[in-house]
Amino acid sequence: MNSLEKLPQRTLMGPGPSDVEPAVLEAMALPTIGHLDPAFLEVMDEVQQMLRQVMQTENEFTIAVSGTGSAAMEAAVINIVSPGDRVVVGVNGVFGTRLVDMAGRAGAEVESLEFPWGEPIPLEAVEESLARKAADVVMLVHGETSTGVRQPMEGLGELCHEHGALLLLDCVTSLGGVEVALDDWGVDACYSGTQKCLSVPPGLAPLTFSSRALDKLDSRESRVPSWYLDMSMVRDYWGADRKYHHTAPINMVYALHEGLRIVLEEGLEARWVRHERHARALWAGLEALGWQLYVAPEHRLFPLTTARPPEGVDEKAFRAALLGEYDIEIGGGLGPLAGKVVRVGLMGAASTRSNLHGFLEAAERIMGIDGEPAQQAAEDALS
Amino acid sequence: MNSLEKLPQRTLMGPGPSDVEPAVLEAMALPTIGHLDPAFLEVMDEVQQMLRQVMQTENEFTIAVSGTGSAAMEAAVINIVSPGDRVVVGVNGVFGTRLVDMAGRAGAEVESLEFPWGEPIPLEAVEESLARKAADVVMLVHGETSTGVRQPMEGLGELCHEHGALLLLDCVTSLGGVEVALDDWGVDACYSGTQKCLSVPPGLAPLTFSSRALDKLDSRESRVPSWYLDMSMVRDYWGADRKYHHTAPINMVYALHEGLRIVLEEGLEARWVRHERHARALWAGLEALGWQLYVAPEHRLFPLTTARPPEGVDEKAFRAALLGEYDIEIGGGLGPLAGKVVRVGLMGAASTRSNLHGFLEAAERIMGIDGEPAQQAAEDALS
Repeated sequence: MNSLEKLPQRTLMGPGPSDVEPAVLEAMALPTIGHLDPAFLEVMDEVQQMLRQVMQTENEFTIAVSGTGSAAMEAAVINIVSPGDRVVVGVNGVFGTRLVDMAGRAGAEVESLEFPWGEPIPLEAVEESLARKAADVVMLVHGETSTGVRQPMEGLGELCHEHGALLLLDCVTSLGGVEVALDDWGVDACYSGTQKCLSVPPGLAPLTFSSRALDKLDSRESRVPSWYLDMSMVRDYWGADRKYHHTAPINMVYALHEGLRIVLEEGLEARWVRHERHARALWAGLEALGWQLYVAPEHRLFPLTTARPPEGVDEKAFRAALLGEYDIEIGGGLGPLAGKVVRVGLMGAASTRSNLHGFLEAAERIMGIDGEPAQQAAEDALS
Repeated sequence: MNSLEKLPQRTLMGPGPSDVEPAVLEAMALPTIGHLDPAFLEVMDEVQQMLRQVMQTENEFTIAVSGTGSAAMEAAVINIVSPGDRVVVGVNGVFGTRLVDMAGRAGAEVESLEFPWGEPIPLEAVEESLARKAADVVMLVHGETSTGVRQPMEGLGELCHEHGALLLLDCVTSLGGVEVALDDWGVDACYSGTQKCLSVPPGLAPLTFSSRALDKLDSRESRVPSWYLDMSMVRDYWGADRKYHHTAPINMVYALHEGLRIVLEEGLEARWVRHERHARALWAGLEALGWQLYVAPEHRLFPLTTARPPEGVDEKAFRAALLGEYDIEIGGGLGPLAGKVVRVGLMGAASTRSNLHGFLEAAERIMGIDGEPAQQAAEDALS
């Protein structure tokens, strides 16, 4: 019994995790040292500096939470929400729904701004809600992993701040794949995951708070409901005090360090352009095969595409054939989209021309279509 | 700027993390695959089976929490404690204190049974508390990492169950290093960390619940206060449903798989004997150098030894010399023991005769003692 000995090598083109660069896996396998070792504290310092660059923020409190993306989501919510706060959440997919759940557990009075899955949250809806009744926090999802929608950010930060609300933003599937400019946008709390466009294995999650968010944390009257995710204490470990809170996931921090280094070496803008180019080519290829893209072109999230299969194609059988015969993983739909769509990611290290062709060629074969129309359409889009 | 390029190789003889076997680091660097990939689900199944063997339990709910030991501690506390529950916590060090904090945040009415640091919690104290007033949960620390005390377990499970209370046990520093027999002891909730006697990098944490604990979770009237650590949902991912909750830390699960395989290959009893032998030799060596062992012999935790320096030895300078000149990490004291003791771990892969000698030789040199009395005393104890 040793399943590790027959572990397959997959191409990860689903909603995450995405393919990891060999250099990141090598960094992760460096010898473990102590969480208070001066050499490790230096690694942490550099991770913080690189995270600030990738998140485009000068927030001092910019760290990696010791858990996966959902842990950082919860950390963001429970540290800036106090019981009784009014929280407005834009809900157009699974992750908005999850924010409502978390804010509710944190004791907030939650208003859900519900919009159809596949559409963004209109600025006017947030404005109308804040004008009707003041709120403490507005929560939005920048890249909705369940639908592949990118939330437009124009005007949201100013609007929230004019009404005295903090702005929380989920950048799990957008960070490192499309522009994320937290300070320009006036975002007060933002989290991401390592396993999407940063192409680092899951297990750590970037989190940043503005000084406004820290002020709210500092002035709370009740304790943060979680000890593990209490950022008023975790801050003393990542900050100058270096006070022990919990043992950091050392080797995962190495991996994130190397992943961020690779992101910055490529350059943020070059990376965004790469994600956009390959996404547009994927869309052309899928449409050439009769797939219907779920999101309107102007709201699509480049790293993750949601598509409905053409008549006669069963999405589950299609995914099983891709994985079983071609070692390519893509995702199925979540919630109301289960069984109706597939989710194809071209994230981070996986966003390559060769993966694009590999996927489209496999799709052509599985669908029994000759003449490589999808690959041709993709090449036309790239040129 | 790349601190990873000059990362030192340390010998980890502190309170954790401990040295990691190269095979575990190699397993961790295997290619990342998806968290719903059938090949990964098989890895998870085997991890669960091996965890049950190492924890000596048949509990179906035996998983690895996606966080470090403190995340599993919090998961154990908040899932089985409901607001208003009466909780009795044995407090004789930092980790009992942390349990009080967590139980308080979970809304419990907490009674702390405070005993001096360095001593175990007497059965009679628990009995007296339960007889005085019924409690819902009793929480104890099996291996107190801040002091190096091992809690005797005789009679505790029966006592708690007779009084209708669940028994929660912290086995972070004991699992894999000394006997942990959860079912025999009647433990209902137990957690550990990967980075102590299992010798896997930090970032995952074993957790198990008895059917009694699951019944309490199933019958709660309020939601678990954390979404990320809500085991009523996480259970559906680790169980037969395989329902997505959050993305598991894939590569850390590989590492834990390999670490558990190595533990079982050595054999639990052989491993406990190894830890005891090296601990006894360490004690002899330290005493030969004039260090005073902090805990009475019958209550010492083999994997972790706490010792007061002899007159004229500054513990902080001693530790700095060990790290700086010999690349050996040991720990300082926590809380009231800060500056007063050192903590020396011989855990998992680090519990070797060569580490024992390396440490004692370095200690002799730093203290300027000739004739190798510590190494000699250690050898005598081993023979």
